[in-house]
Amino acid sequence: MVPFKSLIQLDKTASIPIYLQLSDQLNQLIQSGQLVAGQRLPGTRQLAALLELHRQTIVAAYDEGLAQGWLESRAGSGTYVAAHIPQQIPQRLDATSPVSQTQPGYAFETKPYLLRPVLTNQAGLRLDDGFPDIRLAPMEELSRAYRSYFRWGNPQQHFGYGDTKGHPLLREQLSYHLNETRGLRTTPDNILLTRGSIMGLHLACQVLLRPGDIVVIGETTWAGATMNVQQAGGRVVTVPVDPHGMDVDKLAELVSQQPIRMVYVTPHHHYPTAVTLRADRRLRLLQLAEKHGFAILEDDYDYDFHYLSRPILPLASADRKGMVVYVGSMTKSVAPAFRIGYVVAPATLIDELARLRRIIDRQGDPMLEFALGQLFKNGDMKRHLRKALRTYHARRDWFCDLLTNELPDAIQFTKPDGGLAVWATFRPDIDPEALARQAGREGLSFANGLAHNPPGQRLNGTRLGFASSTETELTQSVLVLRKLLHPLL
Amino acid sequence: MVPFKSLIQLDKTASIPIYLQLSDQLNQLIQSGQLVAGQRLPGTRQLAALLELHRQTIVAAYDEGLAQGWLESRAGSGTYVAAHIPQQIPQRLDATSPVSQTQPGYAFETKPYLLRPVLTNQAGLRLDDGFPDIRLAPMEELSRAYRSYFRWGNPQQHFGYGDTKGHPLLREQLSYHLNETRGLRTTPDNILLTRGSIMGLHLACQVLLRPGDIVVIGETTWAGATMNVQQAGGRVVTVPVDPHGMDVDKLAELVSQQPIRMVYVTPHHHYPTAVTLRADRRLRLLQLAEKHGFAILEDDYDYDFHYLSRPILPLASADRKGMVVYVGSMTKSVAPAFRIGYVVAPATLIDELARLRRIIDRQGDPMLEFALGQLFKNGDMKRHLRKALRTYHARRDWFCDLLTNELPDAIQFTKPDGGLAVWATFRPDIDPEALARQAGREGLSFANGLAHNPPGQRLNGTRLGFASSTETELTQSVLVLRKLLHPLL
Repeated sequence: MVPFKSLIQLDKTASIPIYLQLSDQLNQLIQSGQLVAGQRLPGTRQLAALLELHRQTIVAAYDEGLAQGWLESRAGSGTYVAAHIPQQIPQRLDATSPVSQTQPGYAFETKPYLLRPVLTNQAGLRLDDGFPDIRLAPMEELSRAYRSYFRWGNPQQHFGYGDTKGHPLLREQLSYHLNETRGLRTTPDNILLTRGSIMGLHLACQVLLRPGDIVVIGETTWAGATMNVQQAGGRVVTVPVDPHGMDVDKLAELVSQQPIRMVYVTPHHHYPTAVTLRADRRLRLLQLAEKHGFAILEDDYDYDFHYLSRPILPLASADRKGMVVYVGSMTKSVAPAFRIGYVVAPATLIDELARLRRIIDRQGDPMLEFALGQLFKNGDMKRHLRKALRTYHARRDWFCDLLTNELPDAIQFTKPDGGLAVWATFRPDIDPEALARQAGREGLSFANGLAHNPPGQRLNGTRLGFASSTETELTQSVLVLRKLLHPLL
Repeated sequence: MVPFKSLIQLDKTASIPIYLQLSDQLNQLIQSGQLVAGQRLPGTRQLAALLELHRQTIVAAYDEGLAQGWLESRAGSGTYVAAHIPQQIPQRLDATSPVSQTQPGYAFETKPYLLRPVLTNQAGLRLDDGFPDIRLAPMEELSRAYRSYFRWGNPQQHFGYGDTKGHPLLREQLSYHLNETRGLRTTPDNILLTRGSIMGLHLACQVLLRPGDIVVIGETTWAGATMNVQQAGGRVVTVPVDPHGMDVDKLAELVSQQPIRMVYVTPHHHYPTAVTLRADRRLRLLQLAEKHGFAILEDDYDYDFHYLSRPILPLASADRKGMVVYVGSMTKSVAPAFRIGYVVAPATLIDELARLRRIIDRQGDPMLEFALGQLFKNGDMKRHLRKALRTYHARRDWFCDLLTNELPDAIQFTKPDGGLAVWATFRPDIDPEALARQAGREGLSFANGLAHNPPGQRLNGTRLGFASSTETELTQSVLVLRKLLHPLL
C-alpha cells in the first residue's frame, strides 16, 4: 500500500478544513503518479485509523474527489482513482513564451487632462480632503446585512444579473429619504444608483454633451467634474466664485452671448472653498436654466453634513421644469469603499443613463445596494447620520478654535456651515508646498493645494479636512503646523 | 411625570434591538413635544422598573440619545432632554413643491444603438444565454471571506479609498492563475481589475478608438462589443465566421485595403455560435496585427470552461509584440452578481485605462476583490472551478444527447468543445419567435435569437444554455420543446 501516513501532512491550525487539505493532497499524489488510474483507495475506516482522523473527514475528502472527478466509486467495492483522469494539457500556440510587456505594439493617445488617481489612506496624522471618519461607520450593521443577503432567499435572484438601475429596495428607501430630508419629490423611477457620485457625473456628461458644448463651472472646482466634461468633449468655461458661491450675474452675461449646454454647481458647499450658494442666486440660476434651456448638474456630495439649524434645500427641490440633474453620494456618509451614489432626474433621462451604464459595468453590486437599503429601512442609517453629524459638528468647532488660537496670523479661513473640511489660505510668504513636505516628515499629511489653483493663479490655499480625526488627533496635527510655522512667523 | 409606560411600545420580536427602539421612541416624544428641552428624564433604575426592562437597556438607550445629541448628562444629577435640540428645519427655496418629472426641460439625444438591459433571472425552466449555475457557486467560502474582511485590520485601509487598478491580493493571485492555466506571462502591473469583462471592453474602446476608426468584428457577435465600439465612435466592419471561427483570409484582404485599428475576437468560443478559432488562424491573426499595427481585443469570457483534453491557449499566450488586449471575467466562474473582470495588457496601457476608470467609478469593490483573492489563495477557487467544469461537462453531454434523441429533425447543432451554451439552428419552417412565445406559456424561457441575426439575414438560430440547469431540468425543458415541435414536425 502507498505509505499514506508519511505522504500526507495535515495542518490542524490552518484555515483550510482538514478534509480539503486531505483531498488536495490525494489529488497531488495522483498528479505526481504515486496513485495511479484505477487504483483502489483504502476504506474510509482504515484510512481514518491510519491518519488518526474521524471517519467523516475521510468520507468528505473522498466525496470532494468524486465531485471533482478524479475519484470513482464502484457500488459495493469502494473508492478508486478514476480510470480516466480529467487532466487538461493546453495546446501552446507556438513554442516561445510571451514576454511581460510594458509597451504595446500599437500607438495610443494618452489624454493629458486625465490625472493619475492618488491613494489617500496613509497612516499617521492627516488633514485630508474632507473624508469621513471610517471608525464611525456602521460596520456591524452592514456586516449583518451582508450576512443576511448571503443566507436568505433564492440564489438565482440574489446572485444572478440584477437591475441596471439598482436594487429596488435601495431605490425605494433612497426615494423616501430624499423626499423627507431634502424636499425632493421622487419616485424610484427618478433614481439611478451609481458607484459613487462620480459615475453620476460621468454618465450625465456622456449622455448630455456633444463635442464643443459649453459647460460653465466655478473658477475653482473639483477636478473630477472638469475631467468628465473634457472626456465627453465639452468645453469648460469658468465663472468666479465668491463667499456666496458662483457669480450668477456673470453666468447671465455669458449665457446672453452664447448657448450654454450645462452648468455644474456644488451649491451646498462649493468645492474646494466650502461656501454656500445664496438662496437668491439659486433661484436666479434656476430661472436662467428655464429661460435658456441649459441643464444644471447639481453635485450635492455632502448634503448630509450641515451645522446650521436652517440649511438651504437643494436646487432640485425647487425645480419645476426638470432642469436639474441631481447627483449625490453615500460615500461620505458611510465609507469610501462602499461605492454608492445616485442620480435623480426625469425618468426618460434615467432610462438613457441606464442604457449607457449597461455597456460600462452592466449593474451595481446587489449585496451592497441591499445592505444599504436595509440600513435605511430599519433606521440604522438615520441613527448613524445623526451621530456622525453631531461628531463632525463638534470636530469642526474644535478644529476652528485650534486654527484661530494656535495659528493666528498664518492661516485665514471662514468657519464652514457644513461639509467635512475647512478652506484655509496661507499668508502670502508661506509656501504650502514646502509646508506640506515638512509636515510629511513630521508625520502629518495634507494636500499642498496646488491642484486647486486656476490656470495662472496662486490661491495659496488648501482644504484641511477635520472630520476623519478625533479632537486629540486634530490638536496633534495643528501642533505640528504651529511648530513648523513658528520660525516663519 | 410623562406616562412612559403607555407611550412607549416595544416589540421584542422585531429585528431592531430594544434599546434602539426605546431611544427612537424617546426621540419621537421630543419631536412631538411630549418631552421638552431641559426636562429631566427618570433615572435608569426607575425607568427600567417602569418598563420591565434590564437597567442596561435603559443605559444603552440614553447613551444613544447622548451620542446623537438630543439628551444631555449633567454630572451627579442625571439625564436631561438637551437644552438646545439639534433640530434642522431646512429652508425651502420657494413655496411650491417640485413635481416628479418624466421629461427633462432640455432636449437630449438618445443613442439608437444602445439597447435596453434585459433581466434574465426568471423563475421556472430556462435555457439561457449561457449562464453559470449559481447553486454551485462557493457562497459559504465567499461569505466567510467577506466576514473576515469586515473583522480584520485597519478600517482606514479596508474601507477608505483603494487602488483604482484593484485590490493587490487579487491582482497578484490572478496573475499567478493566468500564468499557470493560460500560458500568459503577467505581473500584477499588467492587470487592471474591472467590473465584469464589459468594463474592460468599454475602457479599451474608449482609450484606443478615435471617431471613424475601423474595428473588425465577426459577422455574428456579442452586442456588448458592437455597442461599445459605436459609443467610442468606431466604425464596425464585419467578416464572416465559419465553423473554425473568424475568416482570417477575409480580414487580410480588408487590412490590405484600408487601415484597421482593432479586431475584436472571442477565439475560445465564438459568441454566439460557440465555435473555436483554429490554431493556424490564430497565428495568422497575430502576424497580421504585428505587420499592420492593429490591436487585437481578445474577449476570453469563458476560458475556464472547456471540455477537450487539449484546449488551445489564448492568443495572448503567443503575443510577443504586445498586440493583444486580453479581457476576461469571473462572472461566469462564480455568479453574475460578483462583478469582477480584468484586462491584461502592457503596463502603459493599463495605466491609461486606470486613469479613465478613475473618472468613471474611481475603483472597484475592495471587499469583493479581497474575497475572490482569498478564494484563489486558499485553493477554494481552484476546487470550485474543477467541480463546476465537471458538472457542466456532464450537463453538456446530457443536453446534446437529449437534443439529438428528442428533437432529431427540428434542431441542428454541433456539440460545443466548451462554453455554457449550444448554438442551435431551427429547421427553416420553424419560427423561433413563435416557439419562444409558446414555450414561455409552458413555463420554459429561452431567447428567440433575433438579436443574433446580422442585418438583413435570418439565421433562425439561438443559444440554448445548458450549464445553469440540472439534468432533470434539462430533460423537462427539452420535453416542453418536443411537445411544441411535435405538431410542427
